[in-house]
Amino acid sequence: MKLLRFGPKGQERPGLLDDEGQVRDLSGHVKDLAGDDVSLSALDAIRAIDVSSLPVVTDPGRIGSALAWVPNFYCIGLNYALHAAESGMDAPKEPIVFSKASSALSGPDDDIILPRTSEKGDWEVELGVVIGKTALYVSEADALHHVAGYCTINDVSERSFQIERGGQWIKGKSAPTFGPVGPWLVTSDEVPDPQALRVSLTLNGEMVQDSHTSDMIFSVRQIVSHLSQFMELRPGDIIATGTPSGVGMGMRPQRFLRPGDIMTVEVEGLGRQTQTVVAAQG
Amino acid sequence: MKLLRFGPKGQERPGLLDDEGQVRDLSGHVKDLAGDDVSLSALDAIRAIDVSSLPVVTDPGRIGSALAWVPNFYCIGLNYALHAAESGMDAPKEPIVFSKASSALSGPDDDIILPRTSEKGDWEVELGVVIGKTALYVSEADALHHVAGYCTINDVSERSFQIERGGQWIKGKSAPTFGPVGPWLVTSDEVPDPQALRVSLTLNGEMVQDSHTSDMIFSVRQIVSHLSQFMELRPGDIIATGTPSGVGMGMRPQRFLRPGDIMTVEVEGLGRQTQTVVAAQG
Repeated sequence: MKLLRFGPKGQERPGLLDDEGQVRDLSGHVKDLAGDDVSLSALDAIRAIDVSSLPVVTDPGRIGSALAWVPNFYCIGLNYALHAAESGMDAPKEPIVFSKASSALSGPDDDIILPRTSEKGDWEVELGVVIGKTALYVSEADALHHVAGYCTINDVSERSFQIERGGQWIKGKSAPTFGPVGPWLVTSDEVPDPQALRVSLTLNGEMVQDSHTSDMIFSVRQIVSHLSQFMELRPGDIIATGTPSGVGMGMRPQRFLRPGDIMTVEVEGLGRQTQTVVAAQG
Repeated sequence: MKLLRFGPKGQERPGLLDDEGQVRDLSGHVKDLAGDDVSLSALDAIRAIDVSSLPVVTDPGRIGSALAWVPNFYCIGLNYALHAAESGMDAPKEPIVFSKASSALSGPDDDIILPRTSEKGDWEVELGVVIGKTALYVSEADALHHVAGYCTINDVSERSFQIERGGQWIKGKSAPTFGPVGPWLVTSDEVPDPQALRVSLTLNGEMVQDSHTSDMIFSVRQIVSHLSQFMELRPGDIIATGTPSGVGMGMRPQRFLRPGDIMTVEVEGLGRQTQTVVAAQG
């Protein structure tokens, strides 16, 4: 299934994308999509609904974040060898884990707002993993059984905040709109192999990131298992699994986001995002 | 007001500690305490209730985390000069920000579970700040107007996970039970000066941390203002404001938590926690 949320910001309703590409209204069955609403059992209940009985939404309008809120927005750092190299860092020996503020969550096509004093805004297309079942000390073999589905993420970053302001990366990852998620939550039954997906990002029409999840240093199953040794993952948690090479920080000369820039962000089969960069007010 | 949650884990009810020290049942008025339930306006609504009309709970039993869940569990690192020194680090020039997994949230007297493979479990008494009003780009002068209240926190840490496993601290801060919060959320009207509170922690009856929030490098108003330059703080977000010297990592020889250890954790006026350390199963 492809699940989504549509409508004005703060008033989104849950929906389902049917096989004809039409949005169907799910709000008669589920109140929203977040937390336990995307547990494996909750998804099974949605799966049992007769799709033809759901009202077609002829004009869904804006698409919101695929999840209404997240308990945690985890991210994996330097998970593609060429991206580690362009960042001037060694490839990690085990997954590097950081987080974004949950308030960074944003719709897939909403404007990206550069924070006040931002000088080094940057882009990062990533495969997103959504947890569907509590995971603590799970094995790699069992890890994917805890995954609800996948989504496209742009892990928008402010490099000076990330690297030059105390050393913990969360400062540069957390501004409002820095976490576009969607357009869809694609359930895991439709993604037989999360390591077989092209990931790409264009900036003003120019392809700047073009890679493949088979190039990830740590696979989704390794990441989920690894994280679960350190914290309890819960339904609705998101994990952004790292970005390939081609970010602005890695270019020579470096290239950072400016108001008016347009990004398209895509993970194969999970849908495309389009974002316009704007400056924060005030 | 002193607000709390009482009852078995997962079945807590909201309550209020009255002037006689009795727990009063708030569940007829509010469903729980978290997120918008602790916004400044929601707290005003609770304040308007006639306390004598609330049922007295003669045996409240277990006290749960003062908040049912948190949108974000932010932490400030190295915010006391002597603690930075004992950690072998320079005092920071601006607040160091990291986070705990929201699933680390725990009751004030619940057991602390050392993760499997843990060898360097450690303690950190901290003044906790709970946000009551959305904060983005707020000034230091205005920062405390965004605070709902304060609470006692033990920012339990696993030093090898924190420091030796990739460098981002979240890995060592996030295990289940690593975030005891409470016993109470004390509203800010009862804490006229958050920089005038003794903070202390005993291990097996021995005082190991004994300091004062006047020794913080960055004050609460500076921290809230600073964070709000990088992310939007929202009602129910917690900020653990850093620990003073006296942690196990700073002792010579170093001393880490073992099953059977008992900690008492107290911030003046915010209540005392008592935790027993146990090993994870499996």
